[in-house]
Amino acid sequence: MTNTLRIGIAGLGTVGTGVLDILAEHGDLIALRAGKAVKVSGVAARNRTKSRGKHDLSKLEWHDDPVALAKSSSIDVLIELIGGDTGPAKLAVEAAIASGKHVITANKALLAHHGVALARAAEAKGVALNFEAAVAGGIPAIKTLREGLVGNSAKRVFGIMNGTCNYILTKMGDEGRGFADVLKEAQELGYAEADPSFDVGGFDTAHKLAVLTSLAFGTEVNLAAIKIEGIEKVALADIRNAAELGYKIKLLGVAVNYGSGIEQRVHPTLIKRGSPVSETDDVFNAIVVKGDFVGDLVLEGRGAGAHPTASAVLSDIVDIARGNIRPAFGVPATELKKYKDSSPRAHEGGFYVALDLHDKPGAVAAIATILADNKISIESIVQRGKADPSAPRATAQFILITHDTLEASLKKAMDKIEKDGHVAGKARVIRIERF
Amino acid sequence: MTNTLRIGIAGLGTVGTGVLDILAEHGDLIALRAGKAVKVSGVAARNRTKSRGKHDLSKLEWHDDPVALAKSSSIDVLIELIGGDTGPAKLAVEAAIASGKHVITANKALLAHHGVALARAAEAKGVALNFEAAVAGGIPAIKTLREGLVGNSAKRVFGIMNGTCNYILTKMGDEGRGFADVLKEAQELGYAEADPSFDVGGFDTAHKLAVLTSLAFGTEVNLAAIKIEGIEKVALADIRNAAELGYKIKLLGVAVNYGSGIEQRVHPTLIKRGSPVSETDDVFNAIVVKGDFVGDLVLEGRGAGAHPTASAVLSDIVDIARGNIRPAFGVPATELKKYKDSSPRAHEGGFYVALDLHDKPGAVAAIATILADNKISIESIVQRGKADPSAPRATAQFILITHDTLEASLKKAMDKIEKDGHVAGKARVIRIERF
Repeated sequence: MTNTLRIGIAGLGTVGTGVLDILAEHGDLIALRAGKAVKVSGVAARNRTKSRGKHDLSKLEWHDDPVALAKSSSIDVLIELIGGDTGPAKLAVEAAIASGKHVITANKALLAHHGVALARAAEAKGVALNFEAAVAGGIPAIKTLREGLVGNSAKRVFGIMNGTCNYILTKMGDEGRGFADVLKEAQELGYAEADPSFDVGGFDTAHKLAVLTSLAFGTEVNLAAIKIEGIEKVALADIRNAAELGYKIKLLGVAVNYGSGIEQRVHPTLIKRGSPVSETDDVFNAIVVKGDFVGDLVLEGRGAGAHPTASAVLSDIVDIARGNIRPAFGVPATELKKYKDSSPRAHEGGFYVALDLHDKPGAVAAIATILADNKISIESIVQRGKADPSAPRATAQFILITHDTLEASLKKAMDKIEKDGHVAGKARVIRIERF
Repeated sequence: MTNTLRIGIAGLGTVGTGVLDILAEHGDLIALRAGKAVKVSGVAARNRTKSRGKHDLSKLEWHDDPVALAKSSSIDVLIELIGGDTGPAKLAVEAAIASGKHVITANKALLAHHGVALARAAEAKGVALNFEAAVAGGIPAIKTLREGLVGNSAKRVFGIMNGTCNYILTKMGDEGRGFADVLKEAQELGYAEADPSFDVGGFDTAHKLAVLTSLAFGTEVNLAAIKIEGIEKVALADIRNAAELGYKIKLLGVAVNYGSGIEQRVHPTLIKRGSPVSETDDVFNAIVVKGDFVGDLVLEGRGAGAHPTASAVLSDIVDIARGNIRPAFGVPATELKKYKDSSPRAHEGGFYVALDLHDKPGAVAAIATILADNKISIESIVQRGKADPSAPRATAQFILITHDTLEASLKKAMDKIEKDGHVAGKARVIRIERF
């Protein structure tokens, strides 16, 4: 490599423009840090005439087809910011690797679906496959797992990885508003997409978790193994109940390495107030890794947005400029272990259960008996009077916190409680994590 | 370099033994991550017969003099774990650099005093000067500043960097015990030294802050410029008052880059509850960086202890094995800017002031007038009755929270209040930081 690193940017949306912003602002500083100049040599984007802020791109090599940019002899590094796990993003990344170019991508879907194959190809060619921006935006989660914690075998990695969900849950709690109401506001503010299902359904978190799991545990990426539950069913009443009991509700992605197998899940979770993770609110993200030597490490910051995400891309660029080329998932892709699912286990930390109880004698006794029959022991109970006494089918609210129990046992008990007609509607069940 | 990286460890105390523990436990995994085997080839320690856990060191090259180890042709990397800013630690590091060896050190004092000179020497020789373990133990603060945030100009770096102080302040608050009492317990538990002044006086934090400041702002290290205040004078009453007002008291190291100059200070600080930093309790550390593109980034974890610190050393080792050699302070040491001190500024966030008021008419009016005369505006006031009405010189407690003001103005007002005889003893003043 010469003393200029030539980059090509495929996809000039907000993050791509953010990269141009940083290079324009800090070009000299980055050259000192990188040991060479970093120069944008080519771009690929659909719309050549669209305004990209103050940036004059007229003198750059311009491609309509990102694959052509990937193959261009004018670039040393392809930065893929197109998105999607198939189509032009995948083709461009594959073409760049095949022609011996380093690749930087912010594309979590591509990595969650094809990460191992791409890592093998990149390693065979001796080029980098860097993706700091794909998980948790500006937080250096990838570098920390890939480089910072090399002395550790990780036992657990989890976190708040979706700013949209965290914003919605925070607002619901702070302002006492329902899910649909806050979602609408988030959409108006640009924090949520017109079709929010990828975010609020937990799928975005799952893609990111799949990548972190592989890095943390040295196993092949396995998106399909993740149990996914979104935040759509989190009721304002649950957030209020949780607050009274000293908890917040967060959408967590959690991966645990039990040695015998791995568990990956995404779901709303009660966590105790007063910890760095529980106090990560609004659009912020937090990633926690438990290493066997370092203990718990928490990283908290902006998980999205043009500039935080571009900051992560710059970290990847300078790594390449400095010759810091690591295996994509920490160990060579050929050495990644096969993914082995853990058998169902007792949930660590118990469950929050909210039941709308028909206010008639014997219901509590019946429920307690069913729980005991299923060997579920209760840590605390809160019963409230009718929420609205004038309502025609008024019910009392009955909140349980269980001790650690098997999820299957809890499900069986809830089925029986619902069938026996003691409750109105379905039980609302949320896992509690203790860290 | 061959496909084995040969390390020499100077100083086999708890951290050195921790490094041996990790290599024994994860040798194969580290070889995959490093791309080569990592092997301890030599050691230097005073006591050869002392037990080092399960480790058999009898076949290693053994030196009484760390300088001899540093010069030995059997090693590629010297790991300096002796400590101290002069004497054998400095001599060994200098000798290693002079003979073309990479250096890893956990020695914050050495870096705070001689960091720039050592960095220049290392860069002239093309060897690494790595020190992840010198600041915040297992938290990858150095890697994050040096590599993760290369796309940013930092505006502020601060944090909780001393586990002893954080443990003491946390216990005082949680258990309602005084400083001396908790300090004694911390000493018995091994969380505080027999002579605790380096920790509780804020000097340890200052050494770490000096290193972070240089990395964050690209300026020469300047330990002498730091204003240092320890936690010895933090009263239990202040912690209680702060809690009632929604704050915790933490010992923070704070560096701010105003563009026109830099401010570095170490002191007890009131910070609002409910943030990731305020909820960093017990022996845990937290480092916060505000970058111009990434925004606020918080790293929280174990700031001390054999294994977390050894985990940081392993990160440095693997960086060297992978050829990831960066300038010690992010940019070449010859390019570090001269340190320029900021002129005294209005403190961002105001002050907490606790006064023991003689309970006689007119005192409050007199104090309010003096504050107004000094242009200090008050955000909130809490007055309490006599703490102990039976005491012969009973006083009322008078707590002020000021708006942002110049520290010099506050000092002037307090001098006047004390001189005018309205208060018993001295005013207790603690800065409030808002982030």
